[in-house]
Amino acid sequence: MSEESVIAQMERLAEQARTAARATAMANTDQKNRALINAAQFIRKRAEHILAINAAEISKARARGKGAAFLDRMSLNEQRIESIATALEEIARLADPVGASIKKWVRPNGLEIERVRTPIGVIAIIYESRPNVTVDAAAIAVKAGNAVILRGGSECIKTSKALFDCFHEALGVAGLPDGAAQFVETPDRAAVGALLSGLGGRIDLLIPRGGKSLVARVQAEARVPVLSHLDGNCHVYVDRDADPQKALEITVNSKMRRTGVCGAAETLLIDQAVVDKLWPAIASALREAGCELRGDAALYALDPQVALASDEDFHTEYLAPILSVAVVAGVAGAIAHIATFSSSHTESIVTENAETAKRFLAEVDSAIVMHNASTQFADGGEFGLGAEIGIATGRLHARGPAGVEELTTYKNIVRGSGQVRP
Amino acid sequence: MSEESVIAQMERLAEQARTAARATAMANTDQKNRALINAAQFIRKRAEHILAINAAEISKARARGKGAAFLDRMSLNEQRIESIATALEEIARLADPVGASIKKWVRPNGLEIERVRTPIGVIAIIYESRPNVTVDAAAIAVKAGNAVILRGGSECIKTSKALFDCFHEALGVAGLPDGAAQFVETPDRAAVGALLSGLGGRIDLLIPRGGKSLVARVQAEARVPVLSHLDGNCHVYVDRDADPQKALEITVNSKMRRTGVCGAAETLLIDQAVVDKLWPAIASALREAGCELRGDAALYALDPQVALASDEDFHTEYLAPILSVAVVAGVAGAIAHIATFSSSHTESIVTENAETAKRFLAEVDSAIVMHNASTQFADGGEFGLGAEIGIATGRLHARGPAGVEELTTYKNIVRGSGQVRP
Repeated sequence: MSEESVIAQMERLAEQARTAARATAMANTDQKNRALINAAQFIRKRAEHILAINAAEISKARARGKGAAFLDRMSLNEQRIESIATALEEIARLADPVGASIKKWVRPNGLEIERVRTPIGVIAIIYESRPNVTVDAAAIAVKAGNAVILRGGSECIKTSKALFDCFHEALGVAGLPDGAAQFVETPDRAAVGALLSGLGGRIDLLIPRGGKSLVARVQAEARVPVLSHLDGNCHVYVDRDADPQKALEITVNSKMRRTGVCGAAETLLIDQAVVDKLWPAIASALREAGCELRGDAALYALDPQVALASDEDFHTEYLAPILSVAVVAGVAGAIAHIATFSSSHTESIVTENAETAKRFLAEVDSAIVMHNASTQFADGGEFGLGAEIGIATGRLHARGPAGVEELTTYKNIVRGSGQVRP
Repeated sequence: MSEESVIAQMERLAEQARTAARATAMANTDQKNRALINAAQFIRKRAEHILAINAAEISKARARGKGAAFLDRMSLNEQRIESIATALEEIARLADPVGASIKKWVRPNGLEIERVRTPIGVIAIIYESRPNVTVDAAAIAVKAGNAVILRGGSECIKTSKALFDCFHEALGVAGLPDGAAQFVETPDRAAVGALLSGLGGRIDLLIPRGGKSLVARVQAEARVPVLSHLDGNCHVYVDRDADPQKALEITVNSKMRRTGVCGAAETLLIDQAVVDKLWPAIASALREAGCELRGDAALYALDPQVALASDEDFHTEYLAPILSVAVVAGVAGAIAHIATFSSSHTESIVTENAETAKRFLAEVDSAIVMHNASTQFADGGEFGLGAEIGIATGRLHARGPAGVEELTTYKNIVRGSGQVRP
């Protein structure tokens, strides 16, 4: 297809979304929940069909030389199909944020002012070859009353489309408009460019879900707001007043529970006042768990077994069993290190000193700041949001885990009895 | 100055703001309030000096052929100086939003999660030749703990700088960092382009204050979030169940109280069921107040005194004593007209029917929706925000009047007792 016709097609699609967004915003909770529950049923019923399409796409991707991790991400099986369906049912059970009152006050002239949650409008989700995102992201967006445009990775676009068809059909059965969820079928990359342009103001929000290169492209080129994070370069700081056992457990869990998640710690900061005392046990626990250690000059001098970390190390989100470690001058040193190197995702302090914790929580300006807890709790499910569309490290609208509530905005309702302004 | 050196200069300035933003975010309420109160004193003390600079700039602008409205906007006098000082004292009295708890919950594993307001960071304010904006906007931004960069219109840049100097000196006396407020002295337009680029991620938010061409340029070219509204094409809808007296008073006040403000009504929608009955009195009151009337075909047929409105009229924010009027098929017709023509600023329904009002307030998706109240209440002061930086019609972060609270974001604080994730 020519680039021009791709753009024309995307404009049509966005215009349909814009129109559908009004009806989707007005849909009642029952209608939306019914759509999600039905979608789960349709997906279960067509599991065999979906798995056959997926198997064909996996073969092709394998033939093209895609690696094991890539193939695993795009692969479905009966169990994964069931978790997709279950996730839909869980999102159906979440409270409907639309229409919820945020705050309400009365002016001296009798005007009642209320801020009420409303959907954002049209949300475009750009993701890689992970078919489950199709349904999961669409369901969260629609539950919050938004119209959604989905653009998935080309390697499993047919699997995603088969899942999407179940979702879309369920929307129709529940009486939601056709344009409430749309799927971009062309693998043409011009379609992504068109979404990033905002299509003449028809897209209100972009959500990239995937690896760093996708997120970086969206952040760099988007002309509309983006909800995303590029890096999760998370820190654990072990303070002089840390409980040694908590310090050890939180450090090991933050780094090693799962190393590939954005909430995994990438750097450990240790207070110079206790490094001699605490490092040996922490180091041996980390090594035992299979973690490679790279220390700054101070740690390197102290422990002949650590490699020497570069500045680059402290900027790196390894997403692997590697930890960079720096010795810092107390909480002030930790705050300064984080201000320089952090990606503003999640940082945790381990200390029994309430004053020190207070200072860290106040002065570290990341989306999530923690006291005596593992950074691996940086997750919408762990926050109790029920389902998350991602974690945002931007500064406006929403920070940290974003769920259905974060996919809404608000309007101001003013109720009077005939007031005019003097 | 060469464009390159302007950009280099702006980068330095933005870097200073970035650094200062951390300290400004940590400043306590007393420090910030002291700065604002002192600034008011400095401005009063130097009134004569400021007025002399202003007089020279007015002469120059007049010689360059600037019109009366332009000259009025840039003019200061003793009374205006006093209101600038008073506004500073009012902003000082507002509650400090930084650190306020938005919500708090406890997870089954004992983790306490709290969302707490934090400053946005570095805010750039781009405005026209209205020297009062210098101090007003800077004060709101700093009260919310942000570092601010000001770029005012070139015709009164010296007046603005003289006011800025008072503000800046007061910040210093209160112990706030030098970079907490900065003023762009070069009249070079490349400086605006540099701000719009975001200066390498150093600017978090842009706020344009001024006419449509300025706002349009910022919205079109900005690579960072913008808080603004382009148009205030506000509607009043008079329903079949309207109280005739309220309909008349609210229409006349919405249009004519002040025609140049963004909350002024530009279009009246009348239910076809009552147009025969209500139009004559409303029309005569509007004409008496000096308003020109332009009706759609239905009204044109009914009233030989109205001019025929074009589609263009219904898209126009007149900011003048002109009103376009359309006859609509009940509340559904009004909602449809608004969806087509509104700029999503403010719309009001006049009706005694609670169900009809409920539908209008739910389905009209503007930043402000009103029932039985004049659209001229679309104002931060009238909302009780104390001071406003502007009215936002974008969909993310803040909608409607934005005050100090809307110039904050939040972070998530997680308090544990050693929890690790299973």
